Amino acid sequence: MAQITAAQVKELRDKTGLGMMTCKEALVACDGDIEKSVDWLRTKGLDTAGKRTGRATKEGAVGSYIHMNGRIGVLLELNSETDFVARSEDFQQLLGDLCMQVAATAPLAISPEAIDKDILAREREIYVGQVSGKPENIVEQIVEGKLKKFYKEQCLLEQPFVKDPNTSVGERIKGVIAKVGENIIVRRFTRFQLGED
Amino acid sequence: MAQITAAQVKELRDKTGLGMMTCKEALVACDGDIEKSVDWLRTKGLDTAGKRTGRATKEGAVGSYIHMNGRIGVLLELNSETDFVARSEDFQQLLGDLCMQVAATAPLAISPEAIDKDILAREREIYVGQVSGKPENIVEQIVEGKLKKFYKEQCLLEQPFVKDPNTSVGERIKGVIAKVGENIIVRRFTRFQLGED
Repeated sequence: MAQITAAQVKELRDKTGLGMMTCKEALVACDGDIEKSVDWLRTKGLDTAGKRTGRATKEGAVGSYIHMNGRIGVLLELNSETDFVARSEDFQQLLGDLCMQVAATAPLAISPEAIDKDILAREREIYVGQVSGKPENIVEQIVEGKLKKFYKEQCLLEQPFVKDPNTSVGERIKGVIAKVGENIIVRRFTRFQLGED
Repeated sequence: MAQITAAQVKELRDKTGLGMMTCKEALVACDGDIEKSVDWLRTKGLDTAGKRTGRATKEGAVGSYIHMNGRIGVLLELNSETDFVARSEDFQQLLGDLCMQVAATAPLAISPEAIDKDILAREREIYVGQVSGKPENIVEQIVEGKLKKFYKEQCLLEQPFVKDPNTSVGERIKGVIAKVGENIIVRRFTRFQLGED
């Protein structure tokens, strides 16, 4: 049996928001492998971060970020379930990270569902045009792949998190949800770039 | 002939943005009266602040203001003619004042022209309903008065400036235009209040 360190338990607790003993049990069962432990906990129905994403959010905070001497500005509302969590360091740091992410990447929308239908139709048309002449099932496959890439570039929650590109922004948020034990959602954001139309 | 002090010349220069000798000449002609001097300069076509309001603005800065622990947030783009002015203390202070003003007063629009036509029609209808039964010319007069009050409450440039309610926000901006010698315009703003629809 692998030796489980306190650091490993802490890492798993941060990722899942679950209790110390539960996390240790999972690590023991998975020979100290963090990712396998997360899956093991999920299999047992203990992925609390996933469950919490349905809960009501009406507290939170509005954050802002001014970039490049005022050439770019971002305003973002992040909601939580309680004011207590909204004032926590984890939440406030997430809020700052999200504002910075929007400043740096200028996403079109929060999630794929929120992208304007006309923009989506135009993208799809362009992709179809790019692969014309190929069999229909291949075309559909390629178009879906290109749309997925488009979402990853244009939707905040799908984007790679600028401070750690191995994680998506959505995963970054889920990490905080797991840690603080409350649902957290990005309600809206606005980005001004100096002189744009 | 009245004795003209350096303080008087400075005050007139701050107000008009004109040169020292021009301001002294105006003060001499008007016995040191500042307001009369402004009129005297205007008569001579030297009201530069007024003239500058037509010039092109594509530089500037985006500013933000977070109020009440993140329950209210404001993002505002203020444009100037040059980056030099945008970085000046006068401009930056104006930007901060405007963000704070929007946070405190939640204006509907920048100016009366920018108010949604439907909102305006509804207001007008309410006012007409409030004074029904009176002669038509009286009704129109009262309605116009109420609309003026509505603009003063709901339009950023018409509002009394929170930090000095004897001045309107528009006058506050004109004061900076006169001082820095460049046109300055409020391009757009957004205000988020936590949990609002």
